[in-house]
Amino acid sequence: MSTTMQAVVKAYAAPGIELREVPIPSPGPGEVLVRVEAASVCGTDLHIFNWDPWAQGRIHPPLIPGHEFAGVVAGVGRGVTTVSEGDPVSAEMHVACGKCLQCRIGLAHVCQHVRILGVDADGAFASYAIIPETNIWRLSPSIPHEYASLLDPLGNAVHTVLAGTIAAKYVAVTGCGAIGLFSIAVAKACGAAAVFAIEVNAHRRGVAATMGADLALDPASDNVHEQILAATGGNGVDVLLEMSGHPSAMRLGFELLRTGGRASLLGIPSRPVELDFARDIIFKGATVQGINGRKMFETWFQMEALLATGKLNLEPAITHRLKLSEFPRAMELLQSGEAIKVVLKPE
Amino acid sequence: MSTTMQAVVKAYAAPGIELREVPIPSPGPGEVLVRVEAASVCGTDLHIFNWDPWAQGRIHPPLIPGHEFAGVVAGVGRGVTTVSEGDPVSAEMHVACGKCLQCRIGLAHVCQHVRILGVDADGAFASYAIIPETNIWRLSPSIPHEYASLLDPLGNAVHTVLAGTIAAKYVAVTGCGAIGLFSIAVAKACGAAAVFAIEVNAHRRGVAATMGADLALDPASDNVHEQILAATGGNGVDVLLEMSGHPSAMRLGFELLRTGGRASLLGIPSRPVELDFARDIIFKGATVQGINGRKMFETWFQMEALLATGKLNLEPAITHRLKLSEFPRAMELLQSGEAIKVVLKPE
Amino acid sequence: MSTTMQAVVKAYAAPGIELREVPIPSPGPGEVLVRVEAASVCGTDLHIFNWDPWAQGRIHPPLIPGHEFAGVVAGVGRGVTTVSEGDPVSAEMHVACGKCLQCRIGLAHVCQHVRILGVDADGAFASYAIIPETNIWRLSPSIPHEYASLLDPLGNAVHTVLAGTIAAKYVAVTGCGAIGLFSIAVAKACGAAAVFAIEVNAHRRGVAATMGADLALDPASDNVHEQILAATGGNGVDVLLEMSGHPSAMRLGFELLRTGGRASLLGIPSRPVELDFARDIIFKGATVQGINGRKMFETWFQMEALLATGKLNLEPAITHRLKLSEFPRAMELLQSGEAIKVVLKPE
Amino acid sequence: MSTTMQAVVKAYAAPGIELREVPIPSPGPGEVLVRVEAASVCGTDLHIFNWDPWAQGRIHPPLIPGHEFAGVVAGVGRGVTTVSEGDPVSAEMHVACGKCLQCRIGLAHVCQHVRILGVDADGAFASYAIIPETNIWRLSPSIPHEYASLLDPLGNAVHTVLAGTIAAKYVAVTGCGAIGLFSIAVAKACGAAAVFAIEVNAHRRGVAATMGADLALDPASDNVHEQILAATGGNGVDVLLEMSGHPSAMRLGFELLRTGGRASLLGIPSRPVELDFARDIIFKGATVQGINGRKMFETWFQMEALLATGKLNLEPAITHRLKLSEFPRAMELLQSGEAIKVVLKPE
Repeated sequence: MSTTMQAVVKAYAAPGIELREVPIPSPGPGEVLVRVEAASVCGTDLHIFNWDPWAQGRIHPPLIPGHEFAGVVAGVGRGVTTVSEGDPVSAEMHVACGKCLQCRIGLAHVCQHVRILGVDADGAFASYAIIPETNIWRLSPSIPHEYASLLDPLGNAVHTVLAGTIAAKYVAVTGCGAIGLFSIAVAKACGAAAVFAIEVNAHRRGVAATMGADLALDPASDNVHEQILAATGGNGVDVLLEMSGHPSAMRLGFELLRTGGRASLLGIPSRPVELDFARDIIFKGATVQGINGRKMFETWFQMEALLATGKLNLEPAITHRLKLSEFPRAMELLQSGEAIKVVLKPE
Repeated sequence: MSTTMQAVVKAYAAPGIELREVPIPSPGPGEVLVRVEAASVCGTDLHIFNWDPWAQGRIHPPLIPGHEFAGVVAGVGRGVTTVSEGDPVSAEMHVACGKCLQCRIGLAHVCQHVRILGVDADGAFASYAIIPETNIWRLSPSIPHEYASLLDPLGNAVHTVLAGTIAAKYVAVTGCGAIGLFSIAVAKACGAAAVFAIEVNAHRRGVAATMGADLALDPASDNVHEQILAATGGNGVDVLLEMSGHPSAMRLGFELLRTGGRASLLGIPSRPVELDFARDIIFKGATVQGINGRKMFETWFQMEALLATGKLNLEPAITHRLKLSEFPRAMELLQSGEAIKVVLKPE
Repeated sequence: MSTTMQAVVKAYAAPGIELREVPIPSPGPGEVLVRVEAASVCGTDLHIFNWDPWAQGRIHPPLIPGHEFAGVVAGVGRGVTTVSEGDPVSAEMHVACGKCLQCRIGLAHVCQHVRILGVDADGAFASYAIIPETNIWRLSPSIPHEYASLLDPLGNAVHTVLAGTIAAKYVAVTGCGAIGLFSIAVAKACGAAAVFAIEVNAHRRGVAATMGADLALDPASDNVHEQILAATGGNGVDVLLEMSGHPSAMRLGFELLRTGGRASLLGIPSRPVELDFARDIIFKGATVQGINGRKMFETWFQMEALLATGKLNLEPAITHRLKLSEFPRAMELLQSGEAIKVVLKPE
Repeated sequence: MSTTMQAVVKAYAAPGIELREVPIPSPGPGEVLVRVEAASVCGTDLHIFNWDPWAQGRIHPPLIPGHEFAGVVAGVGRGVTTVSEGDPVSAEMHVACGKCLQCRIGLAHVCQHVRILGVDADGAFASYAIIPETNIWRLSPSIPHEYASLLDPLGNAVHTVLAGTIAAKYVAVTGCGAIGLFSIAVAKACGAAAVFAIEVNAHRRGVAATMGADLALDPASDNVHEQILAATGGNGVDVLLEMSGHPSAMRLGFELLRTGGRASLLGIPSRPVELDFARDIIFKGATVQGINGRKMFETWFQMEALLATGKLNLEPAITHRLKLSEFPRAMELLQSGEAIKVVLKPE
């Protein structure tokens, strides 16, 4: 076995990225070495690539980014008991502190001192990655590596959809990026009566329909409000899954929500948003949930169960498959909006 | 329009039933007259027919039984505003008092003073039935009358399955009578990872598989415990839906339940049951729910949504279709165990 | 018994009010005639008195306002069974339609077609009032009429406080009008670890402390954020009860809320509010609840239990007691901010 | 500092116990050495002392028992960051595996592979004890050591009481051993409308009243059913807290429970119990919860908040204070039923 490996490296505090040959790391006590079989690219990676203000404030080069992946255990450190060489795995890349209030009451997904592998420490855009055993997720062999590399964003979707009841509910999804699209598939698999996707991009509306949306509407031209009222007996939707972070989509979503409904917000607005709290939340008796990350590890058991029993078709959202060395091309595809999910394979 | 109608009448305090021509009733204020298109037979009707001790204590002849049906509005009394002639409808036949603690806190399905149409007052085994407007359920035109005549037992199933989370859960159903079978279909439609049906009767196990059960096991010969542990990673099932009321099935079900799981009990044991509370409930940290009737009217909205969007195939459970005048034949089919659901049609 | 009674009447579509002698109404079928013993004044009544734009759009004179009261049953219409002459009663003045989606799934407090007595039809600022039996609340004789006249706003407080867990929680209340003050008493009675009241008005901060607030802070001069972090181990509060409807108080409240906390919003902002959704709701994994009215009738059972067992001291919030004929004086006291709750007594 | 310490040791597989001088242990990586200031005795310790069949099957001598205690940090192993020498602490003595399904979904209190310090490994009946950092609970300095030594059984009570809503509820507690008594105090502190204690032992009924029970009833002579119906408007109690494990008390408790109520079972019956599931759970639409241990660590935050803000008076339940060397006397007091909680102090 070689002692070096291929890696995507944010080497300098500047735009761009480098492909390098670096030493294969060794797992310490409680750590697992994973041979990466597939890694997916997230918008966060584009921020790091572009070296935007968020990246400048958060990232300390040199760093191997990448926080969505799946692979096979290649070695384990001392004390590791739950996986062994050859096991197919993915991982939760949010490493919780285990000691804050939130960690101790079952809310580790909003740990006060979270450290993200691929952001705050080396991640998975390489042939191998080191992961603490606590964060490793052993995969059912029936789940393909490509799907397993999507468990991070799929987990966002599952966390959002299953944050309340979804069976027999009428659902609006505002924003059809990857997580919005996954939410459609999850909601349908979990018995949603109907899912209405709202998205300005025509290509994504098409994918939304393929993922199972009953209606895929363009807020710019369709009369969204009227169509959704007609489809819900005049009541509005029971559940809003807000996946865009856009102020106007958020406001539209709240308008569509029926009195007494649930709004689960995952999309992150880049600045404060003005909302008619009286009409849209208070008089409506609405429940609004901020959703962040994935529950550790309830969401993972849910994903595992849904994927292992064949309930989710993620295929339409994987628009591109590239070699890890084609990372810059992946950046271009995401930048242009052409790609939804790009899956990379180390050679 | 004729002034008389065909009716099945429990005329005397003795076994048996009569077919009679009786006057068509008129709807009073707040009441709805429904022309019955399909009515289904329940085990309760067999108790009434056989005049068993329960029936002797509860039923006051003469009575038109029948509490599962669907039809079309044929007339409305003063003050009725939510339906009008020609609307397809079914009804919740538990008439709640509206005044007890339970009715006033959203638990009308366990009203202290409930009166059941078809048991405590005339029901639906006739060409026409009178229903209070509060209990009428207007149907989506896309739901066939035969399915709609099953909303009472389907509601039991939906109430039980959706009394907790079901998506991505491993589920055991003990007892595959009509409600157990419906529960399988509902659980699968709502994203259950897998449903394991447990039933002694081979014919019903076959129907269970048709309804979507991933395994249909015979407790008398299959090694149920071992098979279910194998299918759940050694953990046991997340959810037990107890539909049999048999002590041994209940005990088996609790054994199969994983630590921290949910047991929802609908099947009614005929006498006290001995259970190892320490092992099966307390140390297990289990949640046990007694389930009765259907939630008024949350369960009905759920059924409507699931049926109107085509998520449930109830067909395999309808084993016989007869004329209303063949009521005694329906009794024979149920008595022998040959039938699951028998749907009757007035001429 | 006289055939006429004293009444406060909004007689014309203009500012002001009149005191009149009007006929005592008769209870129709299902209605209850109540002799009013005490009636409390709400901000809504001031809007009606002032004939502000909201009142101009909603109120149709002539109208007897008043929706907070208690009294004694003086007569019942046909079919009334749950109360009889001489029973002490109060009433829920939101009359729900009973037919919309919300009414049928246990959310009658956000009925789509609600009609409010004292706003949309005659209310309780008179010697007698007519109330539908469904809305009558029979009082434990141990509850004084003056307290019982406050069940409407107390119900807002109980609904808000008990919309999630409160025992052993650290709680911030933003805004100490009557409902904010009642919330303090309710939260403390229900085991809140500590309640931090935030209010600009010094008099109201004093009352807040009397009602049980552990800290009563002035956002204008105290370092609220620092003090509350110090009092909560640096975590922030578990629960925010927003009672002001003021944008800056809302924003402060959300800042104080710990990650994973609950924000229950009852105060009604008069226009859209800008909030940092990313920081204050989404990354925080917060749950936000819009709260409206009182649950019918779960909140009433809760109030009854708390008051009948002596757990709430509402006294400090009753700042004035007047005769019904002094209604214009009550308006002045509220207008000036001098009064918190004014209780009126018909002669 | 001495290198040896006083310890209570189960030295042999036989009845009895020994007092020995043993070496003070050293904390390994991630471990904390605690100087024990107070330790309380539990029924489990009596089983170990008596060497009954349960003890014979579970205990491997030599063992230092004791799983209820509080003290001061005397030293920390490598990597410990959350406490340091001199900090007042107690500890959760259930050491969860962290790897099973239950541990990973927030149910560590029902871990499949739990190991209990004081049962499966050395505990706290000694001058010093070794505790993993993960299980250490840092105490507010305002909580007295004696109270803090009761956090294990108090945690059982808090877990049971707060497993559902308690504010404004009518509550029955069956069985007034230490945990039952603590439950009374907790329920009252958290806003229970009234608590009805049911207990055969007159002394314990007296303590129950001191702890805040509104009624303390003797099932052998009082007409419990009638009195509780009278005190609850004929409805029965909203919540049953079953703390006895006695079949007849369990059955009585379920009878007292109102339709739609909650039964939380903590008392452990020594053999299977016969219950009328149809009447007492199913038709009643009851929710039954098996309660085990304490939630890690939500229950601990709740206890900390309640104790640190002075909401619980545990004093009446501490019937005896002895030196650690008087351990055999503590056994006698518990055996005879004379003692409720005995607190021991190492010299």
